[in-house]
Amino acid sequence: MPDVVGMAVIGAGYWGPNLVRNVQAHPGMHLRWVCDRDLPKAQAVVGNSSTALASANLAEVLADPAVTAVAIATPPSTHLPVALAAFAARKHVLVEKPLAPSVRDGRRMVDAAERAGLVLMCDHTYCYTPAVTLIRNLVADGELGDIQYVDSVRIGLGLVQRDVDVLWDLAPHDLSILDFVLPAHMAPTAVAAHTADPLGAGRACIAYLTVALPERAIAHAHVNWLSPMKLRHTIFGGSKRILVWDDLHPTQRISVFDRGVDLADPGIGLEARREALVSYRTGDMVAPALPEREALAAVMDEFASAVLESRRPATDGRAGLRVLAILEAAARSAADGGMFVPLRSSS
Amino acid sequence: MPDVVGMAVIGAGYWGPNLVRNVQAHPGMHLRWVCDRDLPKAQAVVGNSSTALASANLAEVLADPAVTAVAIATPPSTHLPVALAAFAARKHVLVEKPLAPSVRDGRRMVDAAERAGLVLMCDHTYCYTPAVTLIRNLVADGELGDIQYVDSVRIGLGLVQRDVDVLWDLAPHDLSILDFVLPAHMAPTAVAAHTADPLGAGRACIAYLTVALPERAIAHAHVNWLSPMKLRHTIFGGSKRILVWDDLHPTQRISVFDRGVDLADPGIGLEARREALVSYRTGDMVAPALPEREALAAVMDEFASAVLESRRPATDGRAGLRVLAILEAAARSAADGGMFVPLRSSS
Amino acid sequence: MPDVVGMAVIGAGYWGPNLVRNVQAHPGMHLRWVCDRDLPKAQAVVGNSSTALASANLAEVLADPAVTAVAIATPPSTHLPVALAAFAARKHVLVEKPLAPSVRDGRRMVDAAERAGLVLMCDHTYCYTPAVTLIRNLVADGELGDIQYVDSVRIGLGLVQRDVDVLWDLAPHDLSILDFVLPAHMAPTAVAAHTADPLGAGRACIAYLTVALPERAIAHAHVNWLSPMKLRHTIFGGSKRILVWDDLHPTQRISVFDRGVDLADPGIGLEARREALVSYRTGDMVAPALPEREALAAVMDEFASAVLESRRPATDGRAGLRVLAILEAAARSAADGGMFVPLRSSS
Amino acid sequence: MPDVVGMAVIGAGYWGPNLVRNVQAHPGMHLRWVCDRDLPKAQAVVGNSSTALASANLAEVLADPAVTAVAIATPPSTHLPVALAAFAARKHVLVEKPLAPSVRDGRRMVDAAERAGLVLMCDHTYCYTPAVTLIRNLVADGELGDIQYVDSVRIGLGLVQRDVDVLWDLAPHDLSILDFVLPAHMAPTAVAAHTADPLGAGRACIAYLTVALPERAIAHAHVNWLSPMKLRHTIFGGSKRILVWDDLHPTQRISVFDRGVDLADPGIGLEARREALVSYRTGDMVAPALPEREALAAVMDEFASAVLESRRPATDGRAGLRVLAILEAAARSAADGGMFVPLRSSS
Repeated sequence: MPDVVGMAVIGAGYWGPNLVRNVQAHPGMHLRWVCDRDLPKAQAVVGNSSTALASANLAEVLADPAVTAVAIATPPSTHLPVALAAFAARKHVLVEKPLAPSVRDGRRMVDAAERAGLVLMCDHTYCYTPAVTLIRNLVADGELGDIQYVDSVRIGLGLVQRDVDVLWDLAPHDLSILDFVLPAHMAPTAVAAHTADPLGAGRACIAYLTVALPERAIAHAHVNWLSPMKLRHTIFGGSKRILVWDDLHPTQRISVFDRGVDLADPGIGLEARREALVSYRTGDMVAPALPEREALAAVMDEFASAVLESRRPATDGRAGLRVLAILEAAARSAADGGMFVPLRSSS
Repeated sequence: MPDVVGMAVIGAGYWGPNLVRNVQAHPGMHLRWVCDRDLPKAQAVVGNSSTALASANLAEVLADPAVTAVAIATPPSTHLPVALAAFAARKHVLVEKPLAPSVRDGRRMVDAAERAGLVLMCDHTYCYTPAVTLIRNLVADGELGDIQYVDSVRIGLGLVQRDVDVLWDLAPHDLSILDFVLPAHMAPTAVAAHTADPLGAGRACIAYLTVALPERAIAHAHVNWLSPMKLRHTIFGGSKRILVWDDLHPTQRISVFDRGVDLADPGIGLEARREALVSYRTGDMVAPALPEREALAAVMDEFASAVLESRRPATDGRAGLRVLAILEAAARSAADGGMFVPLRSSS
Repeated sequence: MPDVVGMAVIGAGYWGPNLVRNVQAHPGMHLRWVCDRDLPKAQAVVGNSSTALASANLAEVLADPAVTAVAIATPPSTHLPVALAAFAARKHVLVEKPLAPSVRDGRRMVDAAERAGLVLMCDHTYCYTPAVTLIRNLVADGELGDIQYVDSVRIGLGLVQRDVDVLWDLAPHDLSILDFVLPAHMAPTAVAAHTADPLGAGRACIAYLTVALPERAIAHAHVNWLSPMKLRHTIFGGSKRILVWDDLHPTQRISVFDRGVDLADPGIGLEARREALVSYRTGDMVAPALPEREALAAVMDEFASAVLESRRPATDGRAGLRVLAILEAAARSAADGGMFVPLRSSS
Repeated sequence: MPDVVGMAVIGAGYWGPNLVRNVQAHPGMHLRWVCDRDLPKAQAVVGNSSTALASANLAEVLADPAVTAVAIATPPSTHLPVALAAFAARKHVLVEKPLAPSVRDGRRMVDAAERAGLVLMCDHTYCYTPAVTLIRNLVADGELGDIQYVDSVRIGLGLVQRDVDVLWDLAPHDLSILDFVLPAHMAPTAVAAHTADPLGAGRACIAYLTVALPERAIAHAHVNWLSPMKLRHTIFGGSKRILVWDDLHPTQRISVFDRGVDLADPGIGLEARREALVSYRTGDMVAPALPEREALAAVMDEFASAVLESRRPATDGRAGLRVLAILEAAARSAADGGMFVPLRSSS
């Protein structure tokens, strides 16, 4: 296998040009094709100055032996057939989130990849930001203590989309980060969701997800397409420290707060524990310096390495499947009045 | 009746000193007593330079004919007996939120006030801020159009309290504002709540409330004692404009955003409507100038006027009762797994 | 001498009520009088519930043997006669900034206090905030290294005042903080100023001060009455760390940034030093927790202690005089086209 | 002349890749060459997937008849020879700011372009942002009234550079914006500057510029490489409205504040005018919606149009020259102790 991965990007819509730009900029990749049913669109993404080819014919692209792998940025409903065709042509696959529109489809993709011995990576872009990488490491190293709550807000004016509602559009970000950051023994146990379609748009534009975690912990996400106030922040409340990730604060994305009182001290009796609560207040805060790096460049790094080393990427198809399982259960909860829907331990 | 209201403040704890300061500063009030079971505490609040008296004996205070009205800032569980004693002594009552620890207690207070023909005002302080007054007026004047969603976040490091959980401590603010701002035909129809006590503190420290409103609209509140990031903001999403109230942004508390596309236009057919959604984006924003005024001074104005004019205050006992009804139903929902609990139209 | 300081507040204008409130709230002080030429104004500040007396007659107030000290909040042009009368009556004096409208007046006040053996304290309020106290300590302990630059911005919509221009109104804050924080060997050596009166208001509404410090260091202040954007921040650039004080960011007033590269390392040669610069970038940041405390309460503490212990307060008359010397030189520079005006080492 | 401009980018350092990316993305341009003395650097910028060629030989590039124009992103000291060579080869020139290291060099470039009848455009990138375009229009339409002051802050951690000090690195941004926005009758009349090199880096790392404008107005810029707090904002104070441009606030870049009182009303007498000042306070604020557009794309639009239409671009060589004149005078003022240095009306 060559040490430069020949790439085809399938889908020249909203996200496709970002993939194209990052493939072109990656020293370990070589862009061969941009493919879209709408040929002029594909040609526009290729531009005047590229050696890459444009095509409206997926079969033509997959027949090119110089193509080692494809990046799929088509609508979710088409992920399964495109991925199956790619695996049939023995191409590795990087696919946009959500992995598929259903757990059923997603599982077929995972099974096909595993049977073929090919890489299937889900582009959970946020997991490759310096911020989320740091959060994962701090949690793994015990710096935050036990995770007690995770609260995520991802709101702004979004395009109301044909294919997906706000839950399937935005919550995959929060759920993939949760999946990436939480240790295995803290895997979600149930999910409840309340959604609203106050515009009568035919699909939910506002959703609130509550995720039950082991050990009395809780996670919550607010996703919303209708807010003119743009917010992107998540709080990771730990028993030792509390971390705030504010993705729109470029000079201070991560703030780690010391807690004045450690309530987890087993030597404190119940009464003292309650007293202690009264004096609970914030301590010093540390904002670690973060490198500047485009997440999508790191996604390409990981995908290229996984392909060249024939190994599982950090966010493989199974990670995408775990996210799908929560999304499906959340949709069921929303339809049924907001009750908690239990999650089977998948993966 | 004199045109200066003789006042006694009952309770010299956290909030009492604020009441004392505002009573003293009000030209239409005269502070006679500060009363607390803990006499040195009452004396400390009175201070060196005041003509007011300190007492640990409620009966002594209520027996003073120069006292026209009392302001109650004791723990919620004592609101009912203190208020009933005040009414029996023919004093008007201003009481801190929540009105009472239960709808049952609250209703007894309201009934007692109405039977006695005395003023019962609930100190829903936020309703008297220049910001909330403006929001109410904008909604009443139709400037926002139909309310489609209300999203409120009220989080920070709070004192974990003995008497109440976070729901009863913080959500009364959001619910009283909702009650004050929404027109009557948009009264909440059901409430669901998810809470967590990840510290094992014996009471909820995090709560998420979802309030179903008529016409597919939704309200949501996140209240949290455990967040080192302090946030106090509410979005009022209307069909014409969207208003963001950020109470921690002193120079721009209110931002009113135009919507680029009016989806409520009845002339737009369904397909065009869906197309329109795609181009939905923000328009200009206006931040109206707001006067600087301490809300508690306006509370005192309203209470003094209501007493002198023998009329219902803007946030009377019945408003307090409507808030209590939602709190009780929310607590029930949280205990039962987060299902929506319907609300009877009270008041 | 009693251990409660009998106080008179002279001047019931803008700042007087703040002094009155803090005197009343201070356990070691007792408010006897509020004095203003405009008697109803004095009475309004005293209010309905205070034991203090109102007067329009300074002599009457100074004749009261229960008055140990006076706090002067009259216009600057009257500070000298009021203070001299107070010293003649053997009262200690706390005076608002600026100490006096000229170095000449200020020196007479300082001399009179020292001859009489009485306390003269200048109310450099900001020096008593938890933030500035911390900054002073960090600088004194060498935590920032050598101070290389200080940049201060204090702008907003201010009242254009009759008595003073923006330089004399706002720059005393920045200069008193500089005086309080910098070690003695870093005392300013020269000052330049550019001012503007673009409204034709008859006095400067915008001023830029550049203060030359020893060792190639520089301080700069921008004060402005005409900015709708309110800013209050100061950067203290040190050779080891850089501290940012943002007084309008209540939850993160102080941020201390590590520097990635220590250019002061004497072991680095000139060429390496220049190379090093290229990789100069920010390190981690720490935001220390600060206590919540009203600065004016700490001013009262310091003044009461200085009176009771017959000692110099932290911001004595001489500190006020050093600030005056810079203000006078800055006014001269502004009038002369912005040249640096040298400062004699005063005090 | 073809309607696609064949382009060569000279200089593959810090800014070159941005030019390359925007040339490649522009439908009216075709990238032919990336040229840098360091060939591997040029090749890296071209990348794996481009049809463009890399070269270390300027003559080879200029000899290519398919090259219509060059974009120069080399160090300022080389701008003159590269531009002269380009003009000699009859290529149009887009050059990075500052136009040249001296007015003398800059004038030679302008003269050469005018003699040859070729386009010389200075890449004053900020002038092509949606924000600055709007500001220029608002000023031109009289929406702000007369400009009374302009205050600009552009600070952060910058690379200490070999070729230029902070004045020549950052102040061109502020001065080119001032040149672009101010009407001709408000052209700067003098400049003063104070600079500091507290690190002993051999060049100024902090600079304060004061620019005298006609009609008592003033402009000021603070540029600083040593601040860990990153700020990029400019206030345009007008007699009718005040505009704040905060370039780091992506969702509210422009805020336009109404003034409560119009002091310019000629019917107000002097005394009333002074009284009026007292009640001066902020009015409502409007934040106009701005399109999202990369400024460099608009730079390419303007350059391509100017080349194809053989016309002067909006920021031509003369605009670059006016900026140079202020920079040179500022450097002289800083060397001479901060006195105002008069500016001759150039252009």
